[in-house]
Amino acid sequence: MNAKSGYLRQVKQSNLSQVLKCIWRMEQVSRIELVEKTGLTSGTITNLTQDLIKVGLLREEELSTGHVGRRRVNLRLNPKRLKMIGIDIGRTSYEVVITDLVGQTLRSTERPLSAADKPEQVLDAVSASLKRITADMGLQPSDLLGAGLSIPGPMNLQEGTLLVPPNFASWEYYPVRRELEARLGMDILMNDDARTSALAERWFGYGRKDPNFVYVTMGQGIGGGIVSDGEVLQGSNGLYGQVGHITVMPDGELCECGNTGCWETVGSIPGILRRWAHGAGAERKTIDDFFAAVKEGEPRAERCLESTLKVMESTLTTLFNVYDPDLLILGGKLYPYLQSYLPRIQNHVKASVYPFFQHRVRIESASFGASQSAVGAASLVFGSLMERPLDVLEALRSDEGEGA
Amino acid sequence: MNAKSGYLRQVKQSNLSQVLKCIWRMEQVSRIELVEKTGLTSGTITNLTQDLIKVGLLREEELSTGHVGRRRVNLRLNPKRLKMIGIDIGRTSYEVVITDLVGQTLRSTERPLSAADKPEQVLDAVSASLKRITADMGLQPSDLLGAGLSIPGPMNLQEGTLLVPPNFASWEYYPVRRELEARLGMDILMNDDARTSALAERWFGYGRKDPNFVYVTMGQGIGGGIVSDGEVLQGSNGLYGQVGHITVMPDGELCECGNTGCWETVGSIPGILRRWAHGAGAERKTIDDFFAAVKEGEPRAERCLESTLKVMESTLTTLFNVYDPDLLILGGKLYPYLQSYLPRIQNHVKASVYPFFQHRVRIESASFGASQSAVGAASLVFGSLMERPLDVLEALRSDEGEGA
Repeated sequence: MNAKSGYLRQVKQSNLSQVLKCIWRMEQVSRIELVEKTGLTSGTITNLTQDLIKVGLLREEELSTGHVGRRRVNLRLNPKRLKMIGIDIGRTSYEVVITDLVGQTLRSTERPLSAADKPEQVLDAVSASLKRITADMGLQPSDLLGAGLSIPGPMNLQEGTLLVPPNFASWEYYPVRRELEARLGMDILMNDDARTSALAERWFGYGRKDPNFVYVTMGQGIGGGIVSDGEVLQGSNGLYGQVGHITVMPDGELCECGNTGCWETVGSIPGILRRWAHGAGAERKTIDDFFAAVKEGEPRAERCLESTLKVMESTLTTLFNVYDPDLLILGGKLYPYLQSYLPRIQNHVKASVYPFFQHRVRIESASFGASQSAVGAASLVFGSLMERPLDVLEALRSDEGEGA
Repeated sequence: MNAKSGYLRQVKQSNLSQVLKCIWRMEQVSRIELVEKTGLTSGTITNLTQDLIKVGLLREEELSTGHVGRRRVNLRLNPKRLKMIGIDIGRTSYEVVITDLVGQTLRSTERPLSAADKPEQVLDAVSASLKRITADMGLQPSDLLGAGLSIPGPMNLQEGTLLVPPNFASWEYYPVRRELEARLGMDILMNDDARTSALAERWFGYGRKDPNFVYVTMGQGIGGGIVSDGEVLQGSNGLYGQVGHITVMPDGELCECGNTGCWETVGSIPGILRRWAHGAGAERKTIDDFFAAVKEGEPRAERCLESTLKVMESTLTTLFNVYDPDLLILGGKLYPYLQSYLPRIQNHVKASVYPFFQHRVRIESASFGASQSAVGAASLVFGSLMERPLDVLEALRSDEGEGA
């Protein structure tokens, strides 16, 4: 490729990205509005949207305007034609979803995992699940825009290997992306479960209106995805937003990360169960048992819940102070148990931030429930479509045997 | 301006910005290297650099290469011609500096302030100091690239007004930018002292090599400037990086921000003095007295210092976990007293972060000492030159009476 055609390609990539993002943001838009919003000429808009319709990314929707002889045609993302794959591998289960371009889950499969399962076995099972689903749905490679993977961090994103994820010992330094790509015969985008969960909101949830937010996932661990001006921040070592490792208890318990008194040691499921059990021989109980005990009014469980909520409120206040988001979004396996306390949590956080922005404090529940990080994995594909549409479209064409 | 000339202007702005940033980053560079690094044609580079030399932003430096008949000419920022004004208004003093384009302070004036001084009086004094300095130096408006202001936050950057800065009561909701612009007869760029201090590093200090860092200023309060990929993050309410308001002591002292147990209540100068004095009637002592007492081995002062350092180490660890920077930079009026403890602080923080990135933990002292935020105020001007060079150059030309 010479310098000039490289430049023209860049311009086309950037124009396509602008058009797609505009349609994504506004949900539906006419060609005239696209001209106004993007500053591109109407000829360029006509050509680009024609390409996008042809490949199945956009559809036209005719509206009756009531004026004789006038028709108004809006463009929208086409949810019928192209699908995305989202794969979420967690510590206790994996989930595979197929979504459309607007983040609706069309099909999903979830399977339990045990700590004894080796990475190879897990990837074989994931691959088999995916093949079953795509066969059932009659999907061809040319129907698939791509695949994303969500898995516990920290990880090396460049190499696609995991580092030393807590409580996930058999995956240490495992080259998960390469191994999964070999099994599926396609490129995989990946990120950690907190960031993919945040990206699900960024593209299909609250992020359309609010480009600055903090996603907090609470479960076996506590993680965060920080989205600033629509970008999920990675940091210098891929560790931006390790909110579970904010120190909340000076001289507290030793954490997996090597430090003591991290929020995760207090507020994660294991943290709660450990504190509840402390000196009471209740180590083998589950989080269901704990909330049942709270419901029955067991004083030890009530005190443990109260301190869990108090530390959570104080840490969420810290998050407003360090990241200054439009809103906080809460999710993860623990969150459904805490959701009924959300009004109290909101009130306490409001009372703790700077008075002049109390009225702007917003804390919301995650939009995709138990499938949040699987939908988030699919949203990695959507994000690359928005940022580098030409690359995604060329990969799609090469699948169809038309050549790049 | 029609659409086409608007577009051409955008292209020129972006090309100039690329060229200037490349020269800034590499300190000195030949035209051939500029062509390679920017991808612009050699004709464009010749024209743009000619303009920049003519206006006094760049200078040529001839190097002997040892080859007969070959001369190698490097381009550098020209520190001789154009100057920048930095104004820092603090709670106890103000400082005015004149710097060159590489961040060297050529002249500075500092004056004490008392809490009784009204904003109007302070701005009158600032304005008089600045006029005296520029007259002494024989500077004309056409020698000045612009002026920046650093002042305690939080603030409304759009409107240029302060909000409710702690311990700075007479400035609440004061339209400081407009008032200062009226006195100086020029546009003012502003930001809070933690962010300007961070920007001093971004443009003239560590930031040239490390685009991700956290600047922490410790003094009457504790503030932070978070620089991610070279951008200082502002957040939704201008409150990104309020690191002084990380909760470090559950059920701790009430903070100015409305919350309890913030780092600032423990680790700022007033926080240390309060804790040292607690029950000992030492309220009127100063931070000099405190460190003298530490030196003399007074047990209460030693314990207070130890807990100050411990909380600081734990919070700096939290900062590595939430912002994942290349490095932390420490400054502010308290820091000179703590600098001798830096090796210990570094060791404790290293021992507390994830083992796999312990070797990457870096904590450094701020580059500009007591003038950090005044140099930072000047760096606001430098930043706008790098991002929007055409705007800055046009303002300069209109000062010279040549018209925009």
